Amino acid sequence: MTDAASPPPSMISVEDARARILAALTPTSTEIVALSEAWSRVTAAPVTARLTQPPADLSAMDGYALRAADATLGAALTVIGAAPAGHPFGGTIGPGQSVRLFTGSVVPAGADAIVIQEDATRDGEIVRINEAAVAGRHIRRAGQDFAAGDTVVAAGRRISARDIGLAAAANHPWITVHRRPRIGILATGDEIAMPGEPIPAGGIVSSNSHALAAMVRAAGGDPTILPIAQDTTEAVAAVADAIAGLDMLVTTGGASVGDHDLVMSGLQSRGLVLNFWQIAMRPGKPLLFGRLGAVPVLGLPGNPVSAMVCAVLFLGPALARLSGLPAAAPPITTAILGGAVRQNDRRADHLRATISIAEDGRVVATPFTVQDSAMLRRLAQADALILRPPHAPALQSGAEVPVIRLDSLGL
Amino acid sequence: MTDAASPPPSMISVEDARARILAALTPTSTEIVALSEAWSRVTAAPVTARLTQPPADLSAMDGYALRAADATLGAALTVIGAAPAGHPFGGTIGPGQSVRLFTGSVVPAGADAIVIQEDATRDGEIVRINEAAVAGRHIRRAGQDFAAGDTVVAAGRRISARDIGLAAAANHPWITVHRRPRIGILATGDEIAMPGEPIPAGGIVSSNSHALAAMVRAAGGDPTILPIAQDTTEAVAAVADAIAGLDMLVTTGGASVGDHDLVMSGLQSRGLVLNFWQIAMRPGKPLLFGRLGAVPVLGLPGNPVSAMVCAVLFLGPALARLSGLPAAAPPITTAILGGAVRQNDRRADHLRATISIAEDGRVVATPFTVQDSAMLRRLAQADALILRPPHAPALQSGAEVPVIRLDSLGL
Repeated sequence: MTDAASPPPSMISVEDARARILAALTPTSTEIVALSEAWSRVTAAPVTARLTQPPADLSAMDGYALRAADATLGAALTVIGAAPAGHPFGGTIGPGQSVRLFTGSVVPAGADAIVIQEDATRDGEIVRINEAAVAGRHIRRAGQDFAAGDTVVAAGRRISARDIGLAAAANHPWITVHRRPRIGILATGDEIAMPGEPIPAGGIVSSNSHALAAMVRAAGGDPTILPIAQDTTEAVAAVADAIAGLDMLVTTGGASVGDHDLVMSGLQSRGLVLNFWQIAMRPGKPLLFGRLGAVPVLGLPGNPVSAMVCAVLFLGPALARLSGLPAAAPPITTAILGGAVRQNDRRADHLRATISIAEDGRVVATPFTVQDSAMLRRLAQADALILRPPHAPALQSGAEVPVIRLDSLGL
Repeated sequence: MTDAASPPPSMISVEDARARILAALTPTSTEIVALSEAWSRVTAAPVTARLTQPPADLSAMDGYALRAADATLGAALTVIGAAPAGHPFGGTIGPGQSVRLFTGSVVPAGADAIVIQEDATRDGEIVRINEAAVAGRHIRRAGQDFAAGDTVVAAGRRISARDIGLAAAANHPWITVHRRPRIGILATGDEIAMPGEPIPAGGIVSSNSHALAAMVRAAGGDPTILPIAQDTTEAVAAVADAIAGLDMLVTTGGASVGDHDLVMSGLQSRGLVLNFWQIAMRPGKPLLFGRLGAVPVLGLPGNPVSAMVCAVLFLGPALARLSGLPAAAPPITTAILGGAVRQNDRRADHLRATISIAEDGRVVATPFTVQDSAMLRRLAQADALILRPPHAPALQSGAEVPVIRLDSLGL
């Protein structure tokens, strides 16, 4: 029995395709980088504190360290010293004594309270207490932020600016990270030229290589743009000699001559092991995944819009996985439809949409009325992709839909 | 008449402070970078298309170009040639004729319709039409994406991966962008050491410089970490000799000795013109802004959490403005409170919070119960700042609040 509404066996779902790609990838090896170069890299080992922070009980305010029992309202204490931050007081505070402190100063031995300077009147060697001290108040306890040995930045995390501060505070001048994934990018086609170079008759300027290289950079990878391969099996096959050391080869196009797929046949002549090559999705059905020797190969459509949408769905997660981040789908959030959408067919659809914020603060995604996959300018104007699963029902404006935001990922 | 609930005149609001900072800044000068280096830079001029895309009417599918009038159901046409993409057919299609085309092929002269290959049966030189042609269908019109002279990427825009693709397609090998803002970062304090170096007694490891440098990088700037200045007026004053060519000097700390602010006094001894130095906010009241010769100076608090929160509120928008982006507040979105918050006092508060997604897809911001500004680890764990304006009323869980997301900005 066949179900006419289901994709043929060779067409797999977006989720299945992504799972197969992620299962075939492993994180890159590790390297050590200076803290100043570690921002946005992915930790390959936990960063554990090498010291305790604060290292001692510190004053949280400018004021006077003293014994709470002495510092009753109206009491007058002797100031026996001062301890600016970085210059601890060496002695011990005894009964009736105090030491001038500042924010960050070490609380001297013998003291158990701080009276802030706004609550004290200084007169030479004497300080008068205008508000009774509370033991422990305005003191930051040793280890309150972290203790030596604590993990302050977990492994497998993209390092934020705040993580950098935390790793510094934990006394790490070097950080162990995953090597940037090296991604080779191969555009194919007799009709394409690089920007600024002569354009063949009826040809166009190559945009995929550059857009994909930028996307690789946005994901923290290291792109290599390979020379354009002409539309012959031999030209494509020759790329097999140029991929040693790559963590992935990404191709675009090669289906443009229709009757035979040059990327597949060219790379198969050099030993490509195919995993799958068709996905039940739009735009971008002809998507190839396999392995050429040690190098995973992701074959994207030649159409620029299809290539970028497939890159968001598959290359982004692949780059994350190679970088040492968890294997996952792109971040999917919920938005309110700003316009009606039709019932979907059996192929998952990815509608280009703009994002706006409604008066109640909710996120509204409005699909462009024309979704032609040849319109690169429209793709660049899109803030999000609205996800339409296979056979999703027609929806009216105001319905909730899953979206992938493009506007905050550098994409 | 004084209003005890209002800040003193020297304390200005967050919004006023930001407006004063932004008004004092102008975008950096411009430079030309290769397209491959242009990702995430800010355009300094519009990118206008140097060609028309598609350059001619192109086939959107694999099939046959023909005259719609000929291609009735069951008609048999002569195939007079083939035109792979990049190899246009030179002749003209006459009555009863057709040319084999592929996706991206130029539609030959004389043709006004495409019959896709799924709707045709080829037999040698003859192609039989199984579904009547519709004039214009499956043809991508010349200029459908953009026409020569169209602006494809506006000026003053951070260049996305998709913009890179669009600029490439529009035939631009070089892009005019704003120079990366050069930001000097000065940490002050006798008590601080660089990571891995000897730590003075009672001292801590400097985290602000590194966190701020990472934030500058995240915003596309070029950070220079200056050597730590000791807590003397002379040491701070000496930095005035090291700031030529900077677009901004950012300092941290210098108020740690309480009775006198070393950054202010040190830089004033070299001609600092003060704009303001106190903001009615928490964490981070003592924030200084001024100008030292040609260089704007932003003085952040020494406390790491205060420094980063102030950096999000003021340095981020300043970097955007210097980079050529519009002068604006950080992106503020709406979230649902995941826990109750108290009535606020006269100082704008910025509660560190985690973000989660509710079942209905709404974004929930849950403030940490302890908001101690010394807790750097907690700041690194925060996904957002909940904005609490001066005198904001107490709110229960479920209320809507404005938030600044930290989790998607590399911060």
